[in-house]
Amino acid sequence: MNRTLSADTPKKVGEIVKLNGWVNARRNMGKIVFLDLRDRWGIVQVVCVPSETDEPSRDALKDIRPEFVLEIEGVVQDRNEEQVNEKLETGKIEVLAKKIKIFSAVSSELPIAVVEKNTEEADLQKRLDWRWIDLRKPKNILIFKVWTLMEQAFREYWTSNDYIEIHSPKFMGAPSEGSAELFEVKYFDRKAYLAQSPQFYKQMAMASGFEKVFEVGPVFRANPSFTPRHDTEFTGYDMEISFIESHQDIINEEQKAIQYVLGKIKEKFGEEILSVFGRDLIVPTIPFPQITMKQAKEILAKLKVPDEREGDLSPEEERKLSDYIKEKEGYEFVFVTEYPVNVRPFYHMRLEGDQKITKSFDLLWNGLEITTGAQREHRYNVLVAQAKEKGLKLKLIQFYLNFFKYGCPPHGGLGLGPSRMLMKIFNIDNVREVTYLYRGIKRLEP
Amino acid sequence: MNRTLSADTPKKVGEIVKLNGWVNARRNMGKIVFLDLRDRWGIVQVVCVPSETDEPSRDALKDIRPEFVLEIEGVVQDRNEEQVNEKLETGKIEVLAKKIKIFSAVSSELPIAVVEKNTEEADLQKRLDWRWIDLRKPKNILIFKVWTLMEQAFREYWTSNDYIEIHSPKFMGAPSEGSAELFEVKYFDRKAYLAQSPQFYKQMAMASGFEKVFEVGPVFRANPSFTPRHDTEFTGYDMEISFIESHQDIINEEQKAIQYVLGKIKEKFGEEILSVFGRDLIVPTIPFPQITMKQAKEILAKLKVPDEREGDLSPEEERKLSDYIKEKEGYEFVFVTEYPVNVRPFYHMRLEGDQKITKSFDLLWNGLEITTGAQREHRYNVLVAQAKEKGLKLKLIQFYLNFFKYGCPPHGGLGLGPSRMLMKIFNIDNVREVTYLYRGIKRLEP
Repeated sequence: MNRTLSADTPKKVGEIVKLNGWVNARRNMGKIVFLDLRDRWGIVQVVCVPSETDEPSRDALKDIRPEFVLEIEGVVQDRNEEQVNEKLETGKIEVLAKKIKIFSAVSSELPIAVVEKNTEEADLQKRLDWRWIDLRKPKNILIFKVWTLMEQAFREYWTSNDYIEIHSPKFMGAPSEGSAELFEVKYFDRKAYLAQSPQFYKQMAMASGFEKVFEVGPVFRANPSFTPRHDTEFTGYDMEISFIESHQDIINEEQKAIQYVLGKIKEKFGEEILSVFGRDLIVPTIPFPQITMKQAKEILAKLKVPDEREGDLSPEEERKLSDYIKEKEGYEFVFVTEYPVNVRPFYHMRLEGDQKITKSFDLLWNGLEITTGAQREHRYNVLVAQAKEKGLKLKLIQFYLNFFKYGCPPHGGLGLGPSRMLMKIFNIDNVREVTYLYRGIKRLEP
Repeated sequence: MNRTLSADTPKKVGEIVKLNGWVNARRNMGKIVFLDLRDRWGIVQVVCVPSETDEPSRDALKDIRPEFVLEIEGVVQDRNEEQVNEKLETGKIEVLAKKIKIFSAVSSELPIAVVEKNTEEADLQKRLDWRWIDLRKPKNILIFKVWTLMEQAFREYWTSNDYIEIHSPKFMGAPSEGSAELFEVKYFDRKAYLAQSPQFYKQMAMASGFEKVFEVGPVFRANPSFTPRHDTEFTGYDMEISFIESHQDIINEEQKAIQYVLGKIKEKFGEEILSVFGRDLIVPTIPFPQITMKQAKEILAKLKVPDEREGDLSPEEERKLSDYIKEKEGYEFVFVTEYPVNVRPFYHMRLEGDQKITKSFDLLWNGLEITTGAQREHRYNVLVAQAKEKGLKLKLIQFYLNFFKYGCPPHGGLGLGPSRMLMKIFNIDNVREVTYLYRGIKRLEP
């Protein structure tokens, strides 16, 4: 017999079905036992009447407690037509058990609860210690269902626009991006370094004539900070395209992709996100608002927000600026453009008219930076001069500089953090909650 | 003016277009210069007549050599109606240049050729040294177009069957998978290890009730071998599903996915793969042939192939077995099942009737192993016993064993190597050729 998902039981009234799932709750009413059986698609009530089941099932039933994994065969009953007194939390469809089989038992007290009843949720550290139990909560599974759709939708945008997917190496031979936040690997008889982004290698694809590429993969940052926004390893989305005229072509590509992706998420999960997280997801119209860094600083000065980072925005400034744009323009998104050279890497192209300003941008969503992008400098001599100006050791980046020696088109791109997107989709403040298994300075387990 | 792709020029006869691309070849005929301009979509011939262009374009033209990156404005002409003597390699559509702009020059001799004329292809090591130039060859770009579609098609199969995508961490806290091929990372004041597969963490998703998951990501193996099949870092496809009855459920899921994916590739790229690589891609019917390891060894004994690895297959045996199945059954694929315990990891479930045999399989495609899969042992006590029997240190895998203590369904899954799939799609013998940027013991650059 094929398995029936919890969500499909209402279609099978009168039929014998096989259910699989976890015990969400057990209630005893005299000799009758009610089990709420949970699978990824919902919860169904199973009623166990001793006289209706066989002997092994009756024995099994004695032991069954929350989070046991079961297989149940039974008849689907519609109790809408009956005069029932008790309230069924799971609706009026129930399954009358005929056979009960335990696939997996719970051998000791659960360290954290899956179903919280009148108790506060356990402390975050404890929930991360027992992450796989925490993830059983339907609200947590929802986050990863949405992640799946979000990634699928980004990819639909890219592949339908003829991008090529690349998987660039995570091992690098030299500490080319500056060694401060770089992880070092023992690599046979030498050292290797873990890529902090696919930046250099997606630019290589431009020198290879791939013209439009995207990459999804892990990036590694030996960031010693404990903020709710940072981790030592996270998934990055990257794209890069050739023959652009300026960073505005990248901005345009991004806002179209985000509009498409949020439209897809709202369509499929909008109601569930609203009811579970209280977040009404808004699909933005194009174009998103844009301001230059200079304008941003003028606005922030008027709002009397302290200017703590010259030419860049502090988290506080990002929040205040987003609030201002939301109030004034009705947008949760704002592109901040034209960052000064001193806060951007050497490979960002500079404005023709002002060599102190880069053709770059960040995208803020409700106060959080979710993207950094730019047009890149593709002219070998200019790039070398900019690298020298920043004090880089040319020897360490020569393999990268070579990409620009044998014909490389003008190009640009961006990096986007999907976990930061999810934080904003759900209004969740901590990246740990939207990461499958968070990694930080003190956390390498489970 | 918007850019016109090379492939779209025939639709624009009589119009002024803007083209972008690389110079594939330059031919001088008196004062007239013919340029073959290459982009990702094809090649178009540009004819440069001095009297038709402006002064800066004439100056630029003097310098232009192969692999320069250009922008050209010109008029599309159809020379089918003219009496032309010369043969156009790129067909009879050409663009008469009006403006020529150099985006990027080639500053010195190209270290390897993009267009090989009457010369042998450069040595593989040299091509890998200059990988980004090697990748410009249309046959190499085709490999990554196919990769893009292959991954998209696998994902379509998974998402349309309601799988959840996970991105599991690559940092692990303990050398849990055996330290022989494990990379060690300096992780703040301690050590971390790079995951050799997402095995433990995709199983965690089963304990979390995700029920069906897939993951695409890099895996790291400190494999000291120099074979054409091995690298220190490669992309892995992984899937895992719950509530299975045996490894046959995994086999069934895999053959359906592969049939779907190869169907998509054949439909879009079948002709191109045939004409460029001489490989006629066959979409297999379901079910693929299956034999047990015991049967495989009997067949190989009859074929007099040396039995070099007890209970496992050598590369030579894999090839001979594949040849035999192809001859006998007409299939390029064969599932080999029921590997003995001694050649499988501790977490593979064993046959109810024979504790020396695992519920596992490999999939061979034309003599190459592309997949390993199994039903996993989900019963805590049995799993612990099997780990002890293999001599594992329980302390190092306790975080993993814990997944099975609080309710975990029966489950299984597989890992598949996309670069190995590509080797077989194109009949290419070396994994380096189908990897964007190969990483090996001696290769960390570019």
